[in-house]
Amino acid sequence: MDVAEMKSRLAAAEVAHLATVGDGDRPHLVPVCFVLADDRLYFAVDAKPKRTRDLKRLRNIAANPAVSVLVDHYEDDWSKLWWVRVDGTARKVGDSAEAGRAIELLMARYPQYRAARPAGPVVAISIERLSGWTGS
Amino acid sequence: MDVAEMKSRLAAAEVAHLATVGDGDRPHLVPVCFVLADDRLYFAVDAKPKRTRDLKRLRNIAANPAVSVLVDHYEDDWSKLWWVRVDGTARKVGDSAEAGRAIELLMARYPQYRAARPAGPVVAISIERLSGWTGS
Repeated sequence: MDVAEMKSRLAAAEVAHLATVGDGDRPHLVPVCFVLADDRLYFAVDAKPKRTRDLKRLRNIAANPAVSVLVDHYEDDWSKLWWVRVDGTARKVGDSAEAGRAIELLMARYPQYRAARPAGPVVAISIERLSGWTGS
Repeated sequence: MDVAEMKSRLAAAEVAHLATVGDGDRPHLVPVCFVLADDRLYFAVDAKPKRTRDLKRLRNIAANPAVSVLVDHYEDDWSKLWWVRVDGTARKVGDSAEAGRAIELLMARYPQYRAARPAGPVVAISIERLSGWTGS
């Protein structure tokens, strides 16, 4: 899979899986809704039910910005399986213009966000490496 | 979501996402086919195309057995989203009887494995913590 194809599949995926590393070098894993813009992935803490907005994913990123993000496709015909992985560096977006632009892009992408604008914080992931795999 | 419900959703999921931690405390993420048995998850290195069977997931587990495994459901109605996460400890299964039994269970579960028996190695993940979330 070439880089253009990986980016195209990444951009089209509605949900991704975000791995961060926490205390005791334990991995942590959550699904995220995201948008791809300018070779960065953005996601926002949103209104989906949560115990707290001081989320483990954010604490992990503050202590260790290395993240891995996977989008994939599963079906019974394993020759049609594929995945695309981003290895990158995450940061909480401090600049309010950049955060606002990311939220606008998320709202343009997800009607659910137009109904309930995500409050943030926003996280940007710089893509350092793209990997792709197909089952065929 | 109670523990029985989490286990039921976990057991029924056809694909999971496995996060391990590698060199430089970087997370690594791949989809895996798996089976739940005796409070353990098992997955096997299989015949799907790979560059090598000396896989990064196995090297990471050998150096740091802490893993996180996520199964989730996505759809446009976000009130129906859910995920279940296993935080656990992984080990490459050295005992050939245990590995053989896990491969039989994987073959019972996945017709694709009956057509192409996974050669292994087999990895066992002991469940240390189960977490669950729903969007409703």
